[in-house]
Amino acid sequence: MQQPLSGIKVVDLTRILSGPFCTMLLGDMGADVIKIEGVREGDPVRKAGTLVNDFSWYFASFNRNKRSMALDLRTERDKDVLVRLLQRADVLVENFRPGVLAEMGFDETQLELINPRLVVASINGYGSTGPYADRPAFDFVIQAMSGFMSANGGPDHPALRCAPPITDLVAGLYAAYGIVNALRARDLTGRGQRVESSMMAGMLSMFAYLTSDYLATGQLAPRTGNDHPITSPYGMFSASDGEIAVAPSTEDILARFMSILGLADVLADARFCTNDLRLLHRKELNLLINERLRRDTQANWIRRLNAGGVPCGRVQNVGEALNDPQMRHQDMVLEVMHPAHGAVQMVGFPVKLSGTPCKVRHPAPDHGAHTEEILAELGLSAARASP
Amino acid sequence: MQQPLSGIKVVDLTRILSGPFCTMLLGDMGADVIKIEGVREGDPVRKAGTLVNDFSWYFASFNRNKRSMALDLRTERDKDVLVRLLQRADVLVENFRPGVLAEMGFDETQLELINPRLVVASINGYGSTGPYADRPAFDFVIQAMSGFMSANGGPDHPALRCAPPITDLVAGLYAAYGIVNALRARDLTGRGQRVESSMMAGMLSMFAYLTSDYLATGQLAPRTGNDHPITSPYGMFSASDGEIAVAPSTEDILARFMSILGLADVLADARFCTNDLRLLHRKELNLLINERLRRDTQANWIRRLNAGGVPCGRVQNVGEALNDPQMRHQDMVLEVMHPAHGAVQMVGFPVKLSGTPCKVRHPAPDHGAHTEEILAELGLSAARASP
Repeated sequence: MQQPLSGIKVVDLTRILSGPFCTMLLGDMGADVIKIEGVREGDPVRKAGTLVNDFSWYFASFNRNKRSMALDLRTERDKDVLVRLLQRADVLVENFRPGVLAEMGFDETQLELINPRLVVASINGYGSTGPYADRPAFDFVIQAMSGFMSANGGPDHPALRCAPPITDLVAGLYAAYGIVNALRARDLTGRGQRVESSMMAGMLSMFAYLTSDYLATGQLAPRTGNDHPITSPYGMFSASDGEIAVAPSTEDILARFMSILGLADVLADARFCTNDLRLLHRKELNLLINERLRRDTQANWIRRLNAGGVPCGRVQNVGEALNDPQMRHQDMVLEVMHPAHGAVQMVGFPVKLSGTPCKVRHPAPDHGAHTEEILAELGLSAARASP
Repeated sequence: MQQPLSGIKVVDLTRILSGPFCTMLLGDMGADVIKIEGVREGDPVRKAGTLVNDFSWYFASFNRNKRSMALDLRTERDKDVLVRLLQRADVLVENFRPGVLAEMGFDETQLELINPRLVVASINGYGSTGPYADRPAFDFVIQAMSGFMSANGGPDHPALRCAPPITDLVAGLYAAYGIVNALRARDLTGRGQRVESSMMAGMLSMFAYLTSDYLATGQLAPRTGNDHPITSPYGMFSASDGEIAVAPSTEDILARFMSILGLADVLADARFCTNDLRLLHRKELNLLINERLRRDTQANWIRRLNAGGVPCGRVQNVGEALNDPQMRHQDMVLEVMHPAHGAVQMVGFPVKLSGTPCKVRHPAPDHGAHTEEILAELGLSAARASP
């Protein structure tokens, strides 16, 4: 069975996270991804996180569906191999600092000469032009610069990073979206083009009403932690044996929430009959709600409220989320067999296609495992591979 | 000039955020997006956030490049209009609770009969099958259930939501990626298919080493706030007039950082010569670094360190990020003229294509503004539009 990107050849010069995530998304959709690594050192993530049977599960989970080729791109001989790869490729993805690829001899003009149908995707920190174009980037710094940290945390806390490196992953996902669009444009125009995704611009696009309201008013939303700045009731409440996150997002859902609690009449109370009044009397209202919730367990309330159409749930840690029956039902934990390293567990496919689904065609490769195979595909003798 | 999705017709039944963000991404790439809204009430986001000249900038920023058609899908007459739209469409996107579309008469079998080439995309909270399939969803609850809140915050704080509704936006972006892939698969197979993106699975895929390390070890990473759990030095440091976020991600970058500070010899100190030792003596090392950084200003250090290849920056609030010269250079704030509501500012395009770029072809529509125009395109008399 074909996949959406079957037959698409991707030359992958990326390392660490944003780029490898992008090319993994392409590989999951069927692309043939050739991961180019150094001859002496591979992708640094090979040594990052926990190693099991001499293999990083962090590396394994972001490099499935790729083949690895070791090249020394400081030598003319291996630069020539890269040229031959690019002549036959559909997509090149890189996450160097802007300018580095050109310094290696592959500027825009050169790439156009090598293959005018090539889609060239760059993932970087701030964009390849402008005052910060030359700056190196790292998730923590982009969380700071993009405004994310300033919007994260409670009123009494300093600006706060979140642990997941989301700026890398958002930029990688946008790049994958741009690449598939550029392939579609190539079907119409016959030509490749440049695709660029930056971590800072990507993160800045994820703020929804926080950015639109600032642009409309020049005012910043206050930092409110787990409370919602303009909705009440909303937030963490207390059942008999644990907390519940409840978000009654409309008047209709709020009415159902209060009715299930046996508090329908409270919404007629002069203190609570509009959202503005409820914001003013948030504490009193939350007390009333908590008094009811404490009469039963977290699990029972979550079942009952969800059945009544009120969005709610509990705080799960990362392990609980991975083991959650719903996520297991959705195949969000995959087990992939590595011939040399045993079974590796990893996060599954977040977007599902019914007819041509994502799949793991092969596990993450050992460093340089496919160098000779790919040289042979290029018509170069395997002996040519060893320096 | 053509765009990647020129000629692609999208019937958009979504509302609020995850779905409208997805269809905006498709519209930015050139698709003709027909936003179906109720006859009496439009998308609730029309009334959300700050209204300027009787227009929500929040709505405007997520609904550019769409046309609005008002239909009453409880009537057979307007259901028939929807059928005719779907017969000519390439993509249907919906973010109802799973099952709602089928209750309206548009189950999988029916949609297949109407148009076997149709790509049908569903964006939902937890996935359309499994124990939570029927649950309503909301960003805050998904942040709780997915593990995100548990990984956000410092060691002494409770689990913390972040203000940006990222679980909506991540799910919308994954859906857009899946849809363009499904269109590509249709070019190969001639058939449409179902695309599904859930907020919980999408968020769970954004944890990088946090999930892979848990799966490898069964152990949870500690909550460390702005400190990195396994790297030192890293975090917020103090210049003479403000803080600097510094992330020396490799030994090589760390050496450059210390050298620029005039502290190169410190890395030879028995307390600081390996990362493990530096984690043990994090406080002493940070004191030494801060003592140097306090000798100059934030702006000077940020310039000097970035020039030396050390990723660093400052915490910017959302307004500062929007006004940042780099983001302005990257056109990350657009001004779009609305004939009836004046100029509206909104966040620009996070992924750039050089040959067939994203553009604003038309502003967000007034409620039902294109009903008659679209009926005429379907060959239905305009008079047919009014009840």
